[in-house]
Amino acid sequence: MTQNELKAPYLVFMGDAEDLLMAKVAKGVAHWRPEKCVGQMRLPGAKADLGLTEMSVQQAAAAGAKTFILGLAPAGGSLPAEWLPILIEAMEAGMDIASGLHIRLNAIRDLVAVAERTGQRLIDVREPQVEMVCGNGLPRSGKRLLAVGSDCCVGKMFSTLAIHQEMQRRGINATFRATGQTGILIEGSGVPVDAVISDFIAGVVEQLSPANDPDHWDIIEGQGSLFHPAYAGVSLGLLHGAQADVIIVCHESGRQQMDLMEGYPVPDLDAVIKTNLQLGALTNPAIRLGGIALNTSALSPAEAAAEIARCQALYGVPVVDPVRTGVAAIVDGLEG
Amino acid sequence: MTQNELKAPYLVFMGDAEDLLMAKVAKGVAHWRPEKCVGQMRLPGAKADLGLTEMSVQQAAAAGAKTFILGLAPAGGSLPAEWLPILIEAMEAGMDIASGLHIRLNAIRDLVAVAERTGQRLIDVREPQVEMVCGNGLPRSGKRLLAVGSDCCVGKMFSTLAIHQEMQRRGINATFRATGQTGILIEGSGVPVDAVISDFIAGVVEQLSPANDPDHWDIIEGQGSLFHPAYAGVSLGLLHGAQADVIIVCHESGRQQMDLMEGYPVPDLDAVIKTNLQLGALTNPAIRLGGIALNTSALSPAEAAAEIARCQALYGVPVVDPVRTGVAAIVDGLEG
Repeated sequence: MTQNELKAPYLVFMGDAEDLLMAKVAKGVAHWRPEKCVGQMRLPGAKADLGLTEMSVQQAAAAGAKTFILGLAPAGGSLPAEWLPILIEAMEAGMDIASGLHIRLNAIRDLVAVAERTGQRLIDVREPQVEMVCGNGLPRSGKRLLAVGSDCCVGKMFSTLAIHQEMQRRGINATFRATGQTGILIEGSGVPVDAVISDFIAGVVEQLSPANDPDHWDIIEGQGSLFHPAYAGVSLGLLHGAQADVIIVCHESGRQQMDLMEGYPVPDLDAVIKTNLQLGALTNPAIRLGGIALNTSALSPAEAAAEIARCQALYGVPVVDPVRTGVAAIVDGLEG
Repeated sequence: MTQNELKAPYLVFMGDAEDLLMAKVAKGVAHWRPEKCVGQMRLPGAKADLGLTEMSVQQAAAAGAKTFILGLAPAGGSLPAEWLPILIEAMEAGMDIASGLHIRLNAIRDLVAVAERTGQRLIDVREPQVEMVCGNGLPRSGKRLLAVGSDCCVGKMFSTLAIHQEMQRRGINATFRATGQTGILIEGSGVPVDAVISDFIAGVVEQLSPANDPDHWDIIEGQGSLFHPAYAGVSLGLLHGAQADVIIVCHESGRQQMDLMEGYPVPDLDAVIKTNLQLGALTNPAIRLGGIALNTSALSPAEAAAEIARCQALYGVPVVDPVRTGVAAIVDGLEG
């Protein structure tokens, strides 16, 4: 849908990342789209390893790599000067460069000059590349699932990628719709909704998940939380624009405090479910809860199983931990 | 708070406006800030009249005018070519130019060149000129009132300007905080929240209405509606960032259909009140309803009085039509 769609296959660059936490993007791309990764490239001293074939820029180009993905976010979000010659070499070897960094590749003069000379693209996925239109709120065909959360970083991206993957495994007609920079680099397209001018949030999400075949599912990555004092506006615009038929509520079991927000406890599941259904009904009166995805990583296996069983009894919908149990139960519920 | 604050007094330019609907900005500035207007300037054929002293650019400059305000929005939002020499003359005579047009003065090369040469400013009030920071949700001192609405264009700006004016009349320590282009041109400062990147809506509103004296009121202009399928995200970010102690609900009596939104009836007052209090409580648990401002222009005087009495009995708060009754009853309630 955008001129900024990433061309596969990718060379995944990991810099000198010490672990996969630092190379979150690289890890995500290699985990969810291994078929698109031709190899990994690491600098001396890097300790993180995706298990992909180790390649130089020239080897990757020879193997057909079309896009060089910056797979890690250096501290501060800027671009280390010693990476510049590598990016230039990649463009000269015929690759586009894709980045989710705060600093824009398109703001670095040396890179822009090489891009113009070689005809390769500098793809800043934090920069929305869609038409800015206001929402119209009109019903549209096709089915849409949206992840919503009790907080940021509770597994919305992971859950929707897993649901999309499970649907594809079953031959269900489905598309993953990325709404954040990591999701966009994984999927190769999407819109960073938190970077959109606020007037256009709902409209841009309408464009991102347009009318489709009646049996087609858009699986839309969520952002933020209606209960987050800084980002709830983004979450509401996303909910309204998505016109979600189904929401999946994502929550981290045991988290007490909202992400960096002093004085804001994590809301309970009940409030998250009710408020999302209440507000989502504005643009889709048939909105329903399709399941709950818990991140139970802080719990023992026995505690996790008990918590999943408790929530399932309480809410009467499939409850999963996408990492521990997979998401098949949620997809079963959608098919049933 | 911004480098884009308008310097008074103003020359209000009305172009060839046929009526005051076309010259909405001019009308607002002259009505709410007459002490800041040194005169009006009209082109041959203009029929709208603010009743200000008619002045040429040179006369206004001699009278001390510091800012030339584009008081009307031509169809399509662009700038008629025949206005260019007038704006240039105004800058050469020592005035800044302030505009709420969609097209940015700063995108017009000829104007930018003159601005650089003369040192005058081109102030595009649709362009947010504040630091983009995320909200922190922390409590802050001072009192804040926010207008919320059942829809767009139901009187939120008018109501808050009227409440601010009434407070000033009574010697109450209060500041009007503009959040839209017309309000900014009237007040001379503010932030167009719908033009802010969505991640920063709440944070920017926190900056716009910072901690203040305990007895000080920020009277914050509202935008959109939580029930508007395109703009609810803006309204929610504004509500959260404002940490409103008091909301005033604005509504047009008799309006059935939401602004340009097929299939979206105007919500009833009850839902508007409850949902705003429910969601606003996230960042200010003490939020309360301070009154209702009805636009009863579609009703006869007797019908309007009956509707005001009905709402007052139903909700137990002061109910006014700011045009017909003034807003003193609301300010009485805040003082009481």
